[in-house]
Amino acid sequence: MATTKPTGDALWNPQAQMPTARAKRLVLTGGEGAWLTSSTGRRLLDATASLWHANIGHGRARLADVAYHQMRKLETYHTFGRFANEPALHLADRLAEIGPVPDAKVMLTSGGSDSVDLACKLARRHWQLEGRPEKTMILSRVGAYHGLHAYGTSVAGLQYNRDGYGTSSLVPETARVATNDIAAVRRSVAEIGPENIAAIIAEPVIGTGGVIGPAEGYLEGLQELCRSHDILFIADEVITGFGRTGKMFASHRWDIQPDMVTMAKGITSGYAPLGGVLVSPRISERFFEGADAPIFRHGLTYSGHATACAVALANLDVIDEEGLVEQAGRLETVLAKAVEPLRDHELVEEVRSGAGFMAGVHLHEGINGDAIAEACTDAGVLVRVIHDNTLQICPPFVTTEDEVELIADTITQALDAYQH
Amino acid sequence: MATTKPTGDALWNPQAQMPTARAKRLVLTGGEGAWLTSSTGRRLLDATASLWHANIGHGRARLADVAYHQMRKLETYHTFGRFANEPALHLADRLAEIGPVPDAKVMLTSGGSDSVDLACKLARRHWQLEGRPEKTMILSRVGAYHGLHAYGTSVAGLQYNRDGYGTSSLVPETARVATNDIAAVRRSVAEIGPENIAAIIAEPVIGTGGVIGPAEGYLEGLQELCRSHDILFIADEVITGFGRTGKMFASHRWDIQPDMVTMAKGITSGYAPLGGVLVSPRISERFFEGADAPIFRHGLTYSGHATACAVALANLDVIDEEGLVEQAGRLETVLAKAVEPLRDHELVEEVRSGAGFMAGVHLHEGINGDAIAEACTDAGVLVRVIHDNTLQICPPFVTTEDEVELIADTITQALDAYQH
Repeated sequence: MATTKPTGDALWNPQAQMPTARAKRLVLTGGEGAWLTSSTGRRLLDATASLWHANIGHGRARLADVAYHQMRKLETYHTFGRFANEPALHLADRLAEIGPVPDAKVMLTSGGSDSVDLACKLARRHWQLEGRPEKTMILSRVGAYHGLHAYGTSVAGLQYNRDGYGTSSLVPETARVATNDIAAVRRSVAEIGPENIAAIIAEPVIGTGGVIGPAEGYLEGLQELCRSHDILFIADEVITGFGRTGKMFASHRWDIQPDMVTMAKGITSGYAPLGGVLVSPRISERFFEGADAPIFRHGLTYSGHATACAVALANLDVIDEEGLVEQAGRLETVLAKAVEPLRDHELVEEVRSGAGFMAGVHLHEGINGDAIAEACTDAGVLVRVIHDNTLQICPPFVTTEDEVELIADTITQALDAYQH
Repeated sequence: MATTKPTGDALWNPQAQMPTARAKRLVLTGGEGAWLTSSTGRRLLDATASLWHANIGHGRARLADVAYHQMRKLETYHTFGRFANEPALHLADRLAEIGPVPDAKVMLTSGGSDSVDLACKLARRHWQLEGRPEKTMILSRVGAYHGLHAYGTSVAGLQYNRDGYGTSSLVPETARVATNDIAAVRRSVAEIGPENIAAIIAEPVIGTGGVIGPAEGYLEGLQELCRSHDILFIADEVITGFGRTGKMFASHRWDIQPDMVTMAKGITSGYAPLGGVLVSPRISERFFEGADAPIFRHGLTYSGHATACAVALANLDVIDEEGLVEQAGRLETVLAKAVEPLRDHELVEEVRSGAGFMAGVHLHEGINGDAIAEACTDAGVLVRVIHDNTLQICPPFVTTEDEVELIADTITQALDAYQH
């Protein structure tokens, strides 16, 4: 690697207003547990687990060791057709075992957006093979975020992620349904006609849309609606998977059994790009039986990447051995209590907590959320503004109770300073 | 990691007829240079560089070291908005420097499919911002492969990758143009109307479609056609980038300057999932200038993944220091000579070579290509059947001349044995 200081003039950051991003560039150079170090030597608390993914915390020697040894042995080889590698085989079995889908098959990807595009394609493929060619619509919730490949963009429930491509939806056969009102969803399904609907995709807890937990009965209602109308139910657990809600999957917590579950982020805690989809026998069986079983013509170069899979397995070992799922469950209560006083703050519209170890502090319209986030960063705590002027809190599972309180205190102080 | 032998019962392989894939599962456990080891202890020559990506060969200690040290320091942190890390900044600058797009900006992804979806979205976004809202069509070549996310599926030039979803194209605004007949492309553009066309995407050398080099004047003609009609020209260099054609990019070899270049595979030689898109100033400038510069609302969790970027930089160092681009150029001639006799084989329809260190051995219709590939594997050489009953040859750049000859000989023997 070149040792000169990079200017990074060529980098085009994701979701960035580039002149601002360049003027305020913040370069991170180190990480340990819930803490990061910047290029100027500052220590910063990672209150968002990077992009909701750093569940086991940063800089784990064990994961680096595993990656090193797998790369020395076999960095990867493709898994198309008959080919496989041991980490991919192990990981698939383990995901099927710990996931909420009985007898699941597992397709591996390189991230959450990949998993969404795969699941949407497979839902449509399923109904074509079932002889129900009209079932092509994919429904998603207002406020939903499902990645930004062409399918994810099409099922986005955040309008600004859909806008600007010259048509109302890149893939046209999509529609939005109510975020948390199951009666309204029922009416939408009746209007569209269940005979036209392939699947409904839903985050059990909406993430980027503002950290919105499910209304009581909503997820179960969605599942029942899907079952009674031959609609596939896809749970997007890219954020909630691997412990964030105090159970291995949010589907466990809310007792649902989706037909597909999309996964990423916490599957490796970000140490390597990896994702996957759990697929129920209802969909998979025909692809696994008989000499004339159809081929699902899908695949990515790094589906089942050996090093990424080995890293994922080590990450799951850490989660198990350190009891981090239970730890996240305990920290949910600590966080909910810590942000409780913010409900009464003059600048705060709403505080959303209690649906996992994550919270959203929704600021009043007109408050400059970016300035608040920047003030928190200046004070040593990294938070981020997500949809609807909401501050995202979603720390690593290794955050201490004191650090959780530090996050809430820092936000309070930033709001106070903004005010006066 | 669990130490028991995985059954892998849950794994759903990409592009696989699963009953066959499971019956014939081949598990790879080790790799060094151009050679792999299977779980049964067999040594196998990697004649396809896995999926066209293992350019520097397998099991490189140097890349494992770099991954280890970066992971220990900071496995990653997201690069949305103002955030960055040093490997991502370095890599962006270096890609801009070695790529065929002057003053390029660089968006980073986790693979080739990602890069294609990003480029297609950005092409459409560009024309909306230019005030040309009708320019939404993306044209691609018959035989093209551009990954399998929703956009890649929509612009696929291999019909079986498009089929089975209930509509003729997931994203409707796409069309296919002639593979190598520029006059025919010109007619298609006139029929569709250039005022409706956002971009044409083309692999300089068609890969999965059968290893098809460009007809003389085709790529230059495509570029001229695009320029004269305000159509963006996207070169998909996921396979050809980073040396495969004896130049760093195929755009250098055929002297074209695309508006965007999609990259992946050789960017890390497969050691970590990574991709990117080079974007010309024509498109990027408006996003980089002024307080009201628009945001391109796109991004992936692992855009600019620190460890993946560090691995990519080490891979580029290896390519430079060992002169592997020039080596690939020399090996192109060796391979072309080695497969030449196959042109006269009774079972062979056509041999395609001479457009990089890669070749396609197109078998007659009715010959069981999978049986030939299996016979080669049994004889110790991994080849693969791609589109149109074609055997893919695309070895790592560290393959020796003798090994190149071994590949051709093994195929010849497999064809002879099939015949008799």
